[in-house]
Amino acid sequence: MVPRYSRPEMTAIWTPENRFRIWFEIEAHATDALAELGVVPKEAAQALWAWWNTNPAIDVPAIDAIEAVTKHDVIAFLTWVADHVGDQARFMHQGMTSSDVLDTALAVQLAQASDILLADLDRLLEVLKARAIEHKMTPTIGRSHGIHAEPVTFGLKLAQAYAEFDRCKTRLIAARADIATCAISGAVGTFANIDPSVEERVAAKLGLSVEPVSTQVIPRDRHAMFFATLGVIASSIERLATEVRHLQRTEVLEAEEYFSPGQKGSSAMPHKRNPVLTENLTGLARMVRGYVTPALENVALWHERDISHSSVERYIGPDATITLDFALARLTGVIDKLLVYPERMDKNLNKMGGLVHSQRVLLALTQAGVSREDSYRLVQRNAMKVWESDGQLSLLDLLKGDAEVTAALSPQQLEEKFDLGYHLKHVDTIFARVFG
Amino acid sequence: MVPRYSRPEMTAIWTPENRFRIWFEIEAHATDALAELGVVPKEAAQALWAWWNTNPAIDVPAIDAIEAVTKHDVIAFLTWVADHVGDQARFMHQGMTSSDVLDTALAVQLAQASDILLADLDRLLEVLKARAIEHKMTPTIGRSHGIHAEPVTFGLKLAQAYAEFDRCKTRLIAARADIATCAISGAVGTFANIDPSVEERVAAKLGLSVEPVSTQVIPRDRHAMFFATLGVIASSIERLATEVRHLQRTEVLEAEEYFSPGQKGSSAMPHKRNPVLTENLTGLARMVRGYVTPALENVALWHERDISHSSVERYIGPDATITLDFALARLTGVIDKLLVYPERMDKNLNKMGGLVHSQRVLLALTQAGVSREDSYRLVQRNAMKVWESDGQLSLLDLLKGDAEVTAALSPQQLEEKFDLGYHLKHVDTIFARVFG
Amino acid sequence: MVPRYSRPEMTAIWTPENRFRIWFEIEAHATDALAELGVVPKEAAQALWAWWNTNPAIDVPAIDAIEAVTKHDVIAFLTWVADHVGDQARFMHQGMTSSDVLDTALAVQLAQASDILLADLDRLLEVLKARAIEHKMTPTIGRSHGIHAEPVTFGLKLAQAYAEFDRCKTRLIAARADIATCAISGAVGTFANIDPSVEERVAAKLGLSVEPVSTQVIPRDRHAMFFATLGVIASSIERLATEVRHLQRTEVLEAEEYFSPGQKGSSAMPHKRNPVLTENLTGLARMVRGYVTPALENVALWHERDISHSSVERYIGPDATITLDFALARLTGVIDKLLVYPERMDKNLNKMGGLVHSQRVLLALTQAGVSREDSYRLVQRNAMKVWESDGQLSLLDLLKGDAEVTAALSPQQLEEKFDLGYHLKHVDTIFARVFG
Amino acid sequence: MVPRYSRPEMTAIWTPENRFRIWFEIEAHATDALAELGVVPKEAAQALWAWWNTNPAIDVPAIDAIEAVTKHDVIAFLTWVADHVGDQARFMHQGMTSSDVLDTALAVQLAQASDILLADLDRLLEVLKARAIEHKMTPTIGRSHGIHAEPVTFGLKLAQAYAEFDRCKTRLIAARADIATCAISGAVGTFANIDPSVEERVAAKLGLSVEPVSTQVIPRDRHAMFFATLGVIASSIERLATEVRHLQRTEVLEAEEYFSPGQKGSSAMPHKRNPVLTENLTGLARMVRGYVTPALENVALWHERDISHSSVERYIGPDATITLDFALARLTGVIDKLLVYPERMDKNLNKMGGLVHSQRVLLALTQAGVSREDSYRLVQRNAMKVWESDGQLSLLDLLKGDAEVTAALSPQQLEEKFDLGYHLKHVDTIFARVFG
Repeated sequence: MVPRYSRPEMTAIWTPENRFRIWFEIEAHATDALAELGVVPKEAAQALWAWWNTNPAIDVPAIDAIEAVTKHDVIAFLTWVADHVGDQARFMHQGMTSSDVLDTALAVQLAQASDILLADLDRLLEVLKARAIEHKMTPTIGRSHGIHAEPVTFGLKLAQAYAEFDRCKTRLIAARADIATCAISGAVGTFANIDPSVEERVAAKLGLSVEPVSTQVIPRDRHAMFFATLGVIASSIERLATEVRHLQRTEVLEAEEYFSPGQKGSSAMPHKRNPVLTENLTGLARMVRGYVTPALENVALWHERDISHSSVERYIGPDATITLDFALARLTGVIDKLLVYPERMDKNLNKMGGLVHSQRVLLALTQAGVSREDSYRLVQRNAMKVWESDGQLSLLDLLKGDAEVTAALSPQQLEEKFDLGYHLKHVDTIFARVFG
Repeated sequence: MVPRYSRPEMTAIWTPENRFRIWFEIEAHATDALAELGVVPKEAAQALWAWWNTNPAIDVPAIDAIEAVTKHDVIAFLTWVADHVGDQARFMHQGMTSSDVLDTALAVQLAQASDILLADLDRLLEVLKARAIEHKMTPTIGRSHGIHAEPVTFGLKLAQAYAEFDRCKTRLIAARADIATCAISGAVGTFANIDPSVEERVAAKLGLSVEPVSTQVIPRDRHAMFFATLGVIASSIERLATEVRHLQRTEVLEAEEYFSPGQKGSSAMPHKRNPVLTENLTGLARMVRGYVTPALENVALWHERDISHSSVERYIGPDATITLDFALARLTGVIDKLLVYPERMDKNLNKMGGLVHSQRVLLALTQAGVSREDSYRLVQRNAMKVWESDGQLSLLDLLKGDAEVTAALSPQQLEEKFDLGYHLKHVDTIFARVFG
Repeated sequence: MVPRYSRPEMTAIWTPENRFRIWFEIEAHATDALAELGVVPKEAAQALWAWWNTNPAIDVPAIDAIEAVTKHDVIAFLTWVADHVGDQARFMHQGMTSSDVLDTALAVQLAQASDILLADLDRLLEVLKARAIEHKMTPTIGRSHGIHAEPVTFGLKLAQAYAEFDRCKTRLIAARADIATCAISGAVGTFANIDPSVEERVAAKLGLSVEPVSTQVIPRDRHAMFFATLGVIASSIERLATEVRHLQRTEVLEAEEYFSPGQKGSSAMPHKRNPVLTENLTGLARMVRGYVTPALENVALWHERDISHSSVERYIGPDATITLDFALARLTGVIDKLLVYPERMDKNLNKMGGLVHSQRVLLALTQAGVSREDSYRLVQRNAMKVWESDGQLSLLDLLKGDAEVTAALSPQQLEEKFDLGYHLKHVDTIFARVFG
Repeated sequence: MVPRYSRPEMTAIWTPENRFRIWFEIEAHATDALAELGVVPKEAAQALWAWWNTNPAIDVPAIDAIEAVTKHDVIAFLTWVADHVGDQARFMHQGMTSSDVLDTALAVQLAQASDILLADLDRLLEVLKARAIEHKMTPTIGRSHGIHAEPVTFGLKLAQAYAEFDRCKTRLIAARADIATCAISGAVGTFANIDPSVEERVAAKLGLSVEPVSTQVIPRDRHAMFFATLGVIASSIERLATEVRHLQRTEVLEAEEYFSPGQKGSSAMPHKRNPVLTENLTGLARMVRGYVTPALENVALWHERDISHSSVERYIGPDATITLDFALARLTGVIDKLLVYPERMDKNLNKMGGLVHSQRVLLALTQAGVSREDSYRLVQRNAMKVWESDGQLSLLDLLKGDAEVTAALSPQQLEEKFDLGYHLKHVDTIFARVFG
């Protein structure tokens, strides 16, 4: 976890305090269930909740101090609780194994993290939608291979991003369901020492599903799928960040990351406004992707379980979710405040003297009865002149002055071929598909 | 693609023949739609299908020869079709761009590949279920950290695998839906030169969804999610393969990959039966996982598209699906024919002289009123003798002979604590959860 | 292996023919050594070489047919050799294990592949050097964050690439040494059945080092380091390819991948020349990088060996080396024929009306006694005018017309600050460092 | 960075204090060089060092507070220094760019980290050597595929590990050289505003090489190679850790991670001593490997530089080095204190009733004139009896009682074939190769 790429709400999930709170809830709900089964006295469960309702502070250093002696985190925690609750606490954890607590708690933490990420996605989607609608009809050049192709609108670019992040949301909802399971099944998952109904109750109380078959641990294919999904989202972040970086290039400058008027005045080099936020997002995406493979390697635990996954999760649990939360929020801010320069988009669009329309002219000539070969020759000889003039000459003007061309197409017909509206006529259709 | 790790049905999907067939269907359905719109003559579409209904062979070398001249694969294909269909073929591909054909065809190929993989999963699930039921009550030692823990059944191990691959199936169904989209939207995705209804018709005919917003290409987050999902499945394969490898170790030998009686007699070293199939599966899993990151890196194409993803997909499209298909089939074979040795499982289970039951005795002593500390001391002093005898002594016998122990628990009560049934009493519950 | 990204010389290394040839040489040299030790008759070794000197064709289908029966590749090969050499062949392979042949042969193949890659690097370095010297003093704008910073030369860009690939060469030489070892040590590496001198002789004959301690297999950390090194080289390829892609953007257009005059005339859109080769290289780099992790995962074989690495190497051995060879050759071609546009570089350099020199003016004002704050204010108020004019106004002209500025710096002094030579004065120094 | 997997010496390298100390030294040495060139007054350099020699505490919060205003870390630091040094401090950083300081400081940090890792490797090598020599002649079964093969010694296993980590050391020395370079070359690496001799002096003072050609930043192929090398070392750690995990399995139990006698007595389940340290190492290896790909993706910065690499390095700089340091130290402790059980090794070795010698008997029969087919039949019929007895019968006894066998080989000759010494006769040779 790198503090500068962290936000407090997500970071809070991964604090010892939060973990211990979840542990307590698991233990207390389990004790409730055990009490109902008659395995432990009802007073035991009541005592736990009575104390909990006093909203006690979690004394992490005290628990750590006990762990330093017991060398066991769950026992240390239980001991600390017993110190406060008193004798009734000895009924806690009956028939359970540490992994029941640890794995279920991790499920709660990942579900909490997912909820923040889903809210992040919602905010990003909202901002993308607003800016997409704002620029629904702002023409800009579409580029394939970094080379001018045909016109699109800036709103279409954002609509594409909206659709992509909407898919990411669907995937994250599925990934959340995948990891949100509860296992309270004992040493090797057989429920030998604890009734399955305990697991069911705790699951219900914590908003989790029941893990159908656990082996002391919750199977790690679930977590692998979760972190792989975060890696896909990170890659989508990289895509949009890369778009902004391209648009902010000196030679393109169709959009810029926001800078305040104050910032503007502070430098002697007004052109040197660097897309540092989106470059940063590119790097963060690399990190979140980097956590996918360790998560995949965690799946093949030996037999009923080994503990090799644990250290990996101590890194990637916090690091992947905190980094992705930060990245989504940063990207939302970038898009929300993005400075968009429609005049520059227009200028770039026309930079090539109308060459982006050459293909339409070609088609029109063919449809007007000129042979394919002749059409090519006619368009090309004018296109080359425009090209060689570096955009100083206009293709439309040249065509209008080319007798062979005007023999087939009138000036007015030619002008129609240079109409942006032709390219934008289905923007509504696409927007309807994306935004409903 | 490595031939020895390939099966013909999956390999066939990635042949030029299959690709060209899909291309034809895309073009012909699109021509149908264009004909209905009145953009091209109905005769054009009819001519295409008339020829196609003669079930013409795809002459790949001929198409390649044309490509060698045109330097363009789609044009080469269209030219070859025109050579056979005749003049009407010139109406094909009207308003379309090569990517419309290429990306939609890839979607069809990946959907076809998914269908094979789903069938593979179904067969694996079937075999896992059959063997799980067969060994539902075959006791075996559960191991955490490779160390004996408490009893489970061999059926439970397989039920766990069943549940895991059933999740994999759910994930693959979602991943299939993610990539099965059709884009026929022209040079930069604006439908400037082709009506959206063409896309809708082709999508419907090919069993695909419509891509809501494309940018010449179908967005690559879809493919990233697809290959990431294959990576998760591969990791689950590795888990089960690793289990078999462990079980076949000389010292464990609770199960073995199948060998025919003939094989048995062929070697002077009857113990040297190596788990080579599951070792091989471990390696194949590494490869399928290795394709995840390139797929993730493919997402951030520049602007409306660049072509950097294409070379990656020429590798991983075939390699990931062919390898995973082979691996699933191999794993299915391994499980189907797995030689299971219940006697050896029983022997290993009892290897420690009953130490696996020590915790139950401990609990019983406590419940019988012996203090926690004394219970520990009593169990431990007998357990250590068993341990030092390397399993020659029996914990039950020693406990029966320990007066302090028998003062609290009768011989019969002690015997009950060594009952395997205690551990297996919820196997039904778990099976009901997994298999319904 | 994807044929279109393969070159014959490298592909030949990975053919069965080449592998069998290497196998023969290992076996024959080993037989020589055994004959010298008196373990087998000298005639046996002589018979092998006598046959080999007839330059026999390797009949791969025949060997495959034997393998189909024996289910063992090395035995199949030995049988086929024996069929041709006759009775003396039974002395081959005495005391050896299949892995001795397989792993040593892989070492030879990887060493052969390394030699081709080193030659590829040499050609790339040669081309980079030539083009660097050609453009040593071609000014172009240096960009940080994609934004204009200060002038560099195009030669410096290439010199940087030269230095980077020269490091890659050093690394590959080390990686080659790492994998070029010979192991002929028997079933578990103890030389129980074969004298260590055999290994030494075969190593010497094949130009390999002796593996100091093998365990049936050559340890896979060697191969991991080798493939990791290829991954680094691929990343350097991606860097230079990305540079070209950026330079070819429509708005930048300072360089272009080569196109023949014929190509030029063939399109109606002269601006649509896509950097497809370097985009392709970007994708190929992703693949070669993707092979690194499977190679790293291959290291932790179980005990003296398992065979999980084998399937991985059947993929990545050919795929990584063939792809990298192709990519290096393609990159060499791109750089060799790269169309460089110095006028456009000059135009871009001056695009901002001289703003790239603003920092030098600022420094000069400070050195002329103007306070830091005032210097800033003076430069900035002129710079902003230039910026807002979109490069139509010239910073130098404005400064010359600003009385507060000219009070500190004469027009001539100002002009000096706009001198490109100032930025290029150490190009010689850097070239001397790089090229010696 | 996960505190529990961190050691203070390595962590200290990545503290702000250490970073600021390195920054100061870079700046002060550069000022020395500038003073010698006459660019700044000698008093400026003297003032810096005079203050530094008072060993001032680095007030990180104060610097952070300045950064909160200036939004620039290097400027904040320079301001803080100036607050203490006074007026002369304004000559610091003349002609330099922030990256000169940042990248050179990172080089120093990575070199410091390398030195710790090299010392870690030295300690590991020392321990491996000592334990290898201790168990040079401790026989144990060699296993391929997890199946008993032929005898080796436990010392040989450790000698193999020694050779592997010795290679890792060589690789790390090369990787250290790769990243230990100094760049002080200004905004785009042209030395426009600073003489190359400054860079040379700072490099010499800090024990770095001069970066031959930088582009504001030090090229990231260097760092990619560095982190890839750490990934290889991590994989070698995983290999040895996996070996220990296997040896500690209940059924194998040839070695165990250390536990104190106190620990021994504390549990009622004396068999439940889990290899948690080596399982943990397996997970840590996954993490260090996971950092390789982000480092590779960092290579392709845009043009002269972008800042996408920076966030990645804020994670992996500390995380990879701290984790690897911890892992190497943990592995050293595991090997140093490893409980080795030669009796159990012996018992396992003989577990199969002598079947591991069957191949030698087969060879001896052939050499005694029995046909290959008959030899097979004779060995196999006895071997099968041993196998079916689960090691209760002895192959040697059965062979001695088989008249057809004794017709070819005397009892004494047979006994010789069961001699472990035969397998261990070249242990000296191998040790001499490894340890010299």
